[in-house]
Amino acid sequence: MTSRRQLRLGAFMRPVSIHTGAWRWPGAQADANFNLRHLTRYIQKLEAGKFDAFFMADHLAVLNMPIEALRRSHTVTSFEPFSLLSALAMVTERIGLIATASTTFDEPFHIARRFASLDHISEGRAGWNIVTTSNPDAALNFGRDSHMDHGDRYRRAREFHDVVTGLWDSFADDAFIRDAESGLFFDPERMHRLNHKGEYLSVRGPLHIARPVQGWPVIVQAGASEPGRQLAAETAELVFAAPSTLAGARSFYADVKGRMDRLGRPRDHLKILPAAFVVVGDTVEAARQKRLKLDSLVHYESAIASLSVALGHDASGFDPDGPLPPIPETNDSKSSRERVIELAEREGLSVRQLAQRLGGYAGLSFVGTAQTIADEMEQWLETEGSDGFNVMFPWLPGGLDDFVDQVVPELQRRGLFRTEYEGRTLRENLGLPRPANRFFAAPAG
Amino acid sequence: MTSRRQLRLGAFMRPVSIHTGAWRWPGAQADANFNLRHLTRYIQKLEAGKFDAFFMADHLAVLNMPIEALRRSHTVTSFEPFSLLSALAMVTERIGLIATASTTFDEPFHIARRFASLDHISEGRAGWNIVTTSNPDAALNFGRDSHMDHGDRYRRAREFHDVVTGLWDSFADDAFIRDAESGLFFDPERMHRLNHKGEYLSVRGPLHIARPVQGWPVIVQAGASEPGRQLAAETAELVFAAPSTLAGARSFYADVKGRMDRLGRPRDHLKILPAAFVVVGDTVEAARQKRLKLDSLVHYESAIASLSVALGHDASGFDPDGPLPPIPETNDSKSSRERVIELAEREGLSVRQLAQRLGGYAGLSFVGTAQTIADEMEQWLETEGSDGFNVMFPWLPGGLDDFVDQVVPELQRRGLFRTEYEGRTLRENLGLPRPANRFFAAPAG
Repeated sequence: MTSRRQLRLGAFMRPVSIHTGAWRWPGAQADANFNLRHLTRYIQKLEAGKFDAFFMADHLAVLNMPIEALRRSHTVTSFEPFSLLSALAMVTERIGLIATASTTFDEPFHIARRFASLDHISEGRAGWNIVTTSNPDAALNFGRDSHMDHGDRYRRAREFHDVVTGLWDSFADDAFIRDAESGLFFDPERMHRLNHKGEYLSVRGPLHIARPVQGWPVIVQAGASEPGRQLAAETAELVFAAPSTLAGARSFYADVKGRMDRLGRPRDHLKILPAAFVVVGDTVEAARQKRLKLDSLVHYESAIASLSVALGHDASGFDPDGPLPPIPETNDSKSSRERVIELAEREGLSVRQLAQRLGGYAGLSFVGTAQTIADEMEQWLETEGSDGFNVMFPWLPGGLDDFVDQVVPELQRRGLFRTEYEGRTLRENLGLPRPANRFFAAPAG
Repeated sequence: MTSRRQLRLGAFMRPVSIHTGAWRWPGAQADANFNLRHLTRYIQKLEAGKFDAFFMADHLAVLNMPIEALRRSHTVTSFEPFSLLSALAMVTERIGLIATASTTFDEPFHIARRFASLDHISEGRAGWNIVTTSNPDAALNFGRDSHMDHGDRYRRAREFHDVVTGLWDSFADDAFIRDAESGLFFDPERMHRLNHKGEYLSVRGPLHIARPVQGWPVIVQAGASEPGRQLAAETAELVFAAPSTLAGARSFYADVKGRMDRLGRPRDHLKILPAAFVVVGDTVEAARQKRLKLDSLVHYESAIASLSVALGHDASGFDPDGPLPPIPETNDSKSSRERVIELAEREGLSVRQLAQRLGGYAGLSFVGTAQTIADEMEQWLETEGSDGFNVMFPWLPGGLDDFVDQVVPELQRRGLFRTEYEGRTLRENLGLPRPANRFFAAPAG
């Protein structure tokens, strides 16, 4: 069984959940945004479940939403990812710690240094989720009136990646001698000054921190656009995807891995993990009812706005408890409308239930028993829809406990998921190579 | 005894020590720059000694020094302060955590968020050492060819402080309701959008993190220039000073506290802590010998360069083992030359010893027994030379242990220093008020 292709599991974390109604669930830890004890418990449970990584989602502004949705949203505030992950490094030993950092609104010197430091503190468990930050509200928090356009953002991101990885290579792995007898602390011949001058960035270096334990922290990406896919194929080692169907996922998977083939990168040097919202029940019907109950905690007034946007049609006059009425064609996004109509029909949802689904969380979901969820995950893995999943828990801690206590053992029983961590670092556990230093040969011997 | 004015003690930390020869001391932890276990031990020892704060010094570049000094220097690399202090927050309970952050090379939105997060993680123990970063090498790491001039740096720092503190006040302390029944998570009426547009900065806000536990993290400053003193008098709550004599310290103290009088700020809302390098021995002579031994670990070739700079005269031809010969007058800094000549005479130092003193650490030092050191500290406190000290340990862990095990009990015996922490937060322990939110009245009751 050990020769089976292995699933990789990340945990996509918002402290309370991605679902907007989750904080109202009975027993949910609604104060988790600023309660470190809760987050300590979550990550320790994930580590007990042998998860590859704890992935801290992030934004650089209060999200722009209508006031009725905003005042009901637990996503408005939370810890900053770096300080949080450094703290959580102290209460865990093996799980990876992935922080999101923006190439548009930060400096490569700061980013390189902070990730290197997190990698030293965690003894090799850091990962950098590279985002270009598309939220225009963020620009206003950083002294910019207008947002950088999409192409510029991606060209800058590529250059930013090269500068950060170049800074990580400032010191050879064996630069520090610390010979008390001779008084030589390090060998300046084994220190490199980057002297980068590019289109967007100018950075001299060297970075004043030893090379990260992993050489480079693991490089993570989430962009699905054309330049996003290319950046991922060139640089990423983990990709967080957001497909809504297996067919869409397979097409994305084939595209990105095909780009890697053309670049001469081995396919298994990049793991593609779609986000999956997972609700576990003793029966499939029990899981569906749990989800409907969770959705029902989303405020209807704010949910109906989500439905109107998705349909391209004002839904506020619809009978909340009736079925979705026929929607006239418009010029708005047809695929979004069709997906919503198809969802309502497939699950037999009322207007209210449909609106609350969209207002709660509408992405890819696995709702069922540990067996049916493992079946779906196995199917995705074996048909090259993904290399694993970035799991979203419907509420915390209950939904997380259900996954670790029920789904993980089923995956392990099938030989699809580890029962012990393979190594000490995130790279070792993901089966990724340690990058060579581009400026220095490895120490002899 | 409890009514005596109390000393405040910070620990000025470079992981290996400020002294350039310290890593060669027998038993010194030369790998402390990247050894978190050592730093955990240090901070726990400081907390056992009831220190007010652990102060993490910082730079934004490899320091510019001649190659002979550089290759022998343990200061070339270390952890980044934020990730380190967030990690150390998890292994301590009461000691304050002060990070250095630059107003010249970072964004106020990032700085405000990171300190707020550290304050939440540490349950109210964060402090921000505001620096304007005078090192021109740092500019080259952040895409700038030339450094901002001194006046500009300080005007920007003042505006930066106002923006950061304004962002900390984005949410009223009672903004988060989390009423599961009604579904209201927070009250948008209790959220403030800063909309700052100033000379140097433009930041909309709100900051997407709840108000720090302390309202604002403690504001720390170290500048001694005219604009630095004024900024301190206006905004700082701790000042790290670097006087070389008690007379100079008293003059600085009177000047800054006088500025506070004129601004209407109570004098005890700012604590002035000179940096003090402390070497403890069983006798005064034993302490002096320890220091000479430590200094002797500084490489002579690099030390003699420091002596030449201080004298304004090439010292490389002097007899290392002879006394300092007469130095002709030059146009270079007379006060620096006179201080060096006076030091050599007072302590009877050879040229080698003098050079190694300057190359090791040449600032204010207390070298003696626990009693004589406590005498000096008491004198400084009682003659308004300071409100306490930012202690530098000659090497670690030995020099730190000597201070905590010998000097702290002597200070406690005299009623000059706490035997238990007074409160939970850094503000409570320093006796500083919690700032009111400038946009919202405190909750009723």
